[in-house]
Amino acid sequence: MITLESIRRDICEAVEKVRERKPLTPSITNTVTINLVANAQLAVGGSAAMVYMPDEGEAMAGAGDAMYINVGTIYPVYEETLPRAARALRKNGTPWVLDPVGSGMGRLRQKILCAFMQYKPTIIRCNASEAIALANFWRLGNGGKDSGMRGVDATDSVAEARQAAVALARWTGGAVAVSGEKDLVTDGKVAALSSGGSPLMPRVTGMGCSLGGVAAVYAAVASPFIAVLTATAIYNLAGRRAGSKVEGPGHFQAQFLDELYLAKPEDVAANPLELEEEPDGTH
Amino acid sequence: MITLESIRRDICEAVEKVRERKPLTPSITNTVTINLVANAQLAVGGSAAMVYMPDEGEAMAGAGDAMYINVGTIYPVYEETLPRAARALRKNGTPWVLDPVGSGMGRLRQKILCAFMQYKPTIIRCNASEAIALANFWRLGNGGKDSGMRGVDATDSVAEARQAAVALARWTGGAVAVSGEKDLVTDGKVAALSSGGSPLMPRVTGMGCSLGGVAAVYAAVASPFIAVLTATAIYNLAGRRAGSKVEGPGHFQAQFLDELYLAKPEDVAANPLELEEEPDGTH
Amino acid sequence: MITLESIRRDICEAVEKVRERKPLTPSITNTVTINLVANAQLAVGGSAAMVYMPDEGEAMAGAGDAMYINVGTIYPVYEETLPRAARALRKNGTPWVLDPVGSGMGRLRQKILCAFMQYKPTIIRCNASEAIALANFWRLGNGGKDSGMRGVDATDSVAEARQAAVALARWTGGAVAVSGEKDLVTDGKVAALSSGGSPLMPRVTGMGCSLGGVAAVYAAVASPFIAVLTATAIYNLAGRRAGSKVEGPGHFQAQFLDELYLAKPEDVAANPLELEEEPDGTH
Repeated sequence: MITLESIRRDICEAVEKVRERKPLTPSITNTVTINLVANAQLAVGGSAAMVYMPDEGEAMAGAGDAMYINVGTIYPVYEETLPRAARALRKNGTPWVLDPVGSGMGRLRQKILCAFMQYKPTIIRCNASEAIALANFWRLGNGGKDSGMRGVDATDSVAEARQAAVALARWTGGAVAVSGEKDLVTDGKVAALSSGGSPLMPRVTGMGCSLGGVAAVYAAVASPFIAVLTATAIYNLAGRRAGSKVEGPGHFQAQFLDELYLAKPEDVAANPLELEEEPDGTH
Repeated sequence: MITLESIRRDICEAVEKVRERKPLTPSITNTVTINLVANAQLAVGGSAAMVYMPDEGEAMAGAGDAMYINVGTIYPVYEETLPRAARALRKNGTPWVLDPVGSGMGRLRQKILCAFMQYKPTIIRCNASEAIALANFWRLGNGGKDSGMRGVDATDSVAEARQAAVALARWTGGAVAVSGEKDLVTDGKVAALSSGGSPLMPRVTGMGCSLGGVAAVYAAVASPFIAVLTATAIYNLAGRRAGSKVEGPGHFQAQFLDELYLAKPEDVAANPLELEEEPDGTH
Repeated sequence: MITLESIRRDICEAVEKVRERKPLTPSITNTVTINLVANAQLAVGGSAAMVYMPDEGEAMAGAGDAMYINVGTIYPVYEETLPRAARALRKNGTPWVLDPVGSGMGRLRQKILCAFMQYKPTIIRCNASEAIALANFWRLGNGGKDSGMRGVDATDSVAEARQAAVALARWTGGAVAVSGEKDLVTDGKVAALSSGGSPLMPRVTGMGCSLGGVAAVYAAVASPFIAVLTATAIYNLAGRRAGSKVEGPGHFQAQFLDELYLAKPEDVAANPLELEEEPDGTH
């Protein structure tokens, strides 16, 4: 049975294992925040490698301990690269994180996100509007909500996206994390609400993207649910600590990476967390 | 009539409005400084979203409150993306900022910059050599000057680029800002000279690009002239403040973003500013 | 005759000359660390410009005082861009630095790296596994070692790569630098071992890439051997200083750029250095 205690123990272990094993976690990710994704992965103890070409995406899907795919900026070559990488990940049983940035924008982006349905990303990390949009694309239950994207920002609340998140998790058999004031992490049966962070976080680009990249690092050593919950917890912890030490978003980013690097496993595990069973969950 | 007082009042209002409204300001911009552009836009209160694909550029030109286009690094797909986005911006009457980085380099870059002539960018943000090169491309008056580009750096002075800047502003009906020791901002009738900044600014890549991105944010709530003047003033203020607190370019960037975030509207408005009428201006 | 004293004098001079002349050093480099490459080049006193298009790569190979090519992330257009740029560099006699990131990964990456053999990069800057892989591609002596790449990280030691590095340097007639705990710089006849740095350096992405970019800046004013040794020395000095002042990788990067900017020529020259003759070297 999943309890708060067992979860905290598993989070502690995930933080430690990554620092010991330095899992290789390649990414195909957007150019806006690619540097922060790599630096956050390195700060928690992972190893980063970014690629664009189809054969390299497929090769990384074979070589990596886990992988991160973020569709924030689409290139033409992604038409081949992304489905090939996702297919290889699924075939190899390699855990991977999908960050469906800007769901709903662009023909190729939608085509790629639709193709991902069959490859069942182990973890989906997104904001509320992206969760709703993706559940709509995949024709899963979403509570009849339409997504309210504005550029790449959410206009929907985490509560409004909860039904979509549960539906996505049940489809993939993995975990879904929806970022918000309290972050929701669900495996379709149990939901964890993680809190912390800082009001400066939305003033720094790539906090969500790099959270997805870090979730992939933890997915190399833990279950999807624990992996993305560990990433969420260390982000909430490091964000709260960094936010209390700086005056603005520039120094926040530097301090935040330091806090990721310095965080003790037991402190990550002790970060505020609530547990709720999903209405018809059967853990 | 435009006076220093009315300008300062309008700058103050632009800073406040952006913080209230958080305008969506998508960009198509170079990969070198794309992260700083987004972080600067977020620091002043805007919302950022970067794209590359033709249909996404066009969609963003429709969805954005203003847009930023910077040709610093050209991809093949830009042959379609950039003219389509610019056409849509012009058609929709959406304000946009052009940053003609590296004018004169490359066949495709020149072709795109020439195509932009008919779409009349609301604001052109550039260095002295780029202003002269662009006025030459567009066969506008430029005082007979040839542009002296060196890579992406200017070798001409702001004074030498003034005639080109005025000609560009008169053609577009918008505003042109030329960065230099004193920054020139002109709408073809009146010129404002804004000063401040720090000798560390040329030692950090992307100060100019991100200034263009921030000008686009202000263009969502103010006239082209006031928008780019507000961006220039907050850059001169934040640059001066950051420069006085740090020892080198690494911490400068972090401190600069903090200062953008912390600057009070009345302090931005009070930044040193001189006003001059253009010889045959008719304000 | 090369002595430690003559080397130290040449390093001192290289640091000074770059600050005086601000050499234009364009790059074609990966999107992960492109910003840090530019900022490091600016911090030591160079001028940066990044391009992707074939005609722009060729133009930069003509306009630049030296050039930096890093294959960390490959785009389809590089099939034409990179060989054209390298051919122009060779033809013009312009010094250039190759950073063969991820040697062994991907069809196009390998094809490009093989094509580079005939254009003889003036400086090769890499990790141990990349040196071995490149010597294998080029069928030069490598001590019978197979490369042990893991993503973009080395699993081989600098000592294991020494034979490959010497073979590469003898082929190109330039210099090769292999990063490790002690960094090896060889021109095929003499080897210099440079030490310093910080355990935080592998926790920040792009320290190697930006070292290559900075080596290109120095290559505009010094011999290949002195250029890459100067870059290595200033990195070891700035890394040691930065590492002693910060707690984690976030502030390390900011402090490191400050230290590059602040380093006195004589301090760079005085950084710990050992000299060894290669077995059959004929200096």
